[in-house]
Amino acid sequence: MKIDVVTIFPEMIRSGLSHSIIKRAQEAGRVQVAAHDPRDHTTDRHRSTDDTPYGGGAGMVMRPGPIFAAVESLEPPPDARIVMLTPQGKTLTQAMAHEFAQASHLILLCGHYEGFDERVREHLATDEISIGDYVLTGGELPALVLIDAVVRLLPGVLGSEESAAGDTFSDGLLEYPQYTRPPDFRGWTIPEVLLSGNHAAIANWRRKEQFRRTQSRRPDLWSAFQPSKSDLKLLKQLSEETPSPPAGESSEEN
Amino acid sequence: MKIDVVTIFPEMIRSGLSHSIIKRAQEAGRVQVAAHDPRDHTTDRHRSTDDTPYGGGAGMVMRPGPIFAAVESLEPPPDARIVMLTPQGKTLTQAMAHEFAQASHLILLCGHYEGFDERVREHLATDEISIGDYVLTGGELPALVLIDAVVRLLPGVLGSEESAAGDTFSDGLLEYPQYTRPPDFRGWTIPEVLLSGNHAAIANWRRKEQFRRTQSRRPDLWSAFQPSKSDLKLLKQLSEETPSPPAGESSEEN
Repeated sequence: MKIDVVTIFPEMIRSGLSHSIIKRAQEAGRVQVAAHDPRDHTTDRHRSTDDTPYGGGAGMVMRPGPIFAAVESLEPPPDARIVMLTPQGKTLTQAMAHEFAQASHLILLCGHYEGFDERVREHLATDEISIGDYVLTGGELPALVLIDAVVRLLPGVLGSEESAAGDTFSDGLLEYPQYTRPPDFRGWTIPEVLLSGNHAAIANWRRKEQFRRTQSRRPDLWSAFQPSKSDLKLLKQLSEETPSPPAGESSEEN
Repeated sequence: MKIDVVTIFPEMIRSGLSHSIIKRAQEAGRVQVAAHDPRDHTTDRHRSTDDTPYGGGAGMVMRPGPIFAAVESLEPPPDARIVMLTPQGKTLTQAMAHEFAQASHLILLCGHYEGFDERVREHLATDEISIGDYVLTGGELPALVLIDAVVRLLPGVLGSEESAAGDTFSDGLLEYPQYTRPPDFRGWTIPEVLLSGNHAAIANWRRKEQFRRTQSRRPDLWSAFQPSKSDLKLLKQLSEETPSPPAGESSEEN
């Protein structure tokens, strides 16, 4: 996969990519990521990439010319995904990350100030993505977030295929609690079942904790969850163990 | 404001902070941000910050000891917000960014692998935050996103107070389209009203575009929106101009 980022802060992208799994994926040849400055595609003396908005108002708007020129210089294939990072976009989900991971060429456009000239949206971008309902100073962190979410899904990037499959959101539920050494930390001990060696009991406890946690914290995810037959059996047990609302979490709120 | 980040990749935080508005805010003394490696608080020969999960399964879990020790070494005041970045947390919103911007001391905990030992959540963290429903390789990018969203809200950080107030999400609607020079770019012209010099007409056009865009793209935001009296007048005009569904956006979908 090829990923190109069009940004007036190319160093921010380059330094953000020099860590951890993204770095390893680049070294292993799974992905090539490069940052490109639209300033290199300006023709005026000041090399300006922004200008005042038509109709007045505070702030500056990214000019269409340098963005179009920067993207065209990358000679994107017809099936390239040209993604504007913008608070006006669709909110990124894990399913969308999986979809982007199928693309051969991603071009990410990072906005600043009051955003892009609308003609970038209308005539250049194929997708508009927001990483969440909060305001950031620019599109660079959202671009890094999208790259991280996508690259870790590429085959051979994570240590084993299972590591990605078992993550939060892949089956629509939050993860179960995890514990490691010591078993007694400052008097706080771990649940006994985890020391039992009984694999079926551990798997059941973990699944029930996923139900409990998702129900109480993310009713939106819970209402979309499709339980399997064995899930339904565990849910029945759970409702018999804990009078509703589930005791484990409601005690936090009381 | 003081922000401390506990992370096994302190360089990733440091390089992510050396740009743009965050850099300026630090230089102006509005915020002090520092990164701390829990590895510096390990006592074993391998300086390990993670270990295998009790109960089995793939991946590694962040040990509680080095995280507790790193946080305690910062001597947090009783009102410090100790925020775990985790996909299990509450989803970050602009309202939450405003709330965090009131804190005097934020401590951000960045997880990796299969996440934190549950006792960090139970006995150390005051908040658990997720930046969205997607899986990332670690908590560093979420920490940078949270820092960016919060720091730009601190007084004196942005050029003028208005720049922050006029942003997307502050009144619950998406932003209107923006245009800058040239007025004709490759045959694509800007809406005539923006050249009219009629400020009231421009303001009305922009507000209607906010309605139109939010209605069609983010029904969730639209249903929570509380229109003012003048908004209701514009909404009536809009419904008379455009037979439902609104023409401007529905043409994209057909």
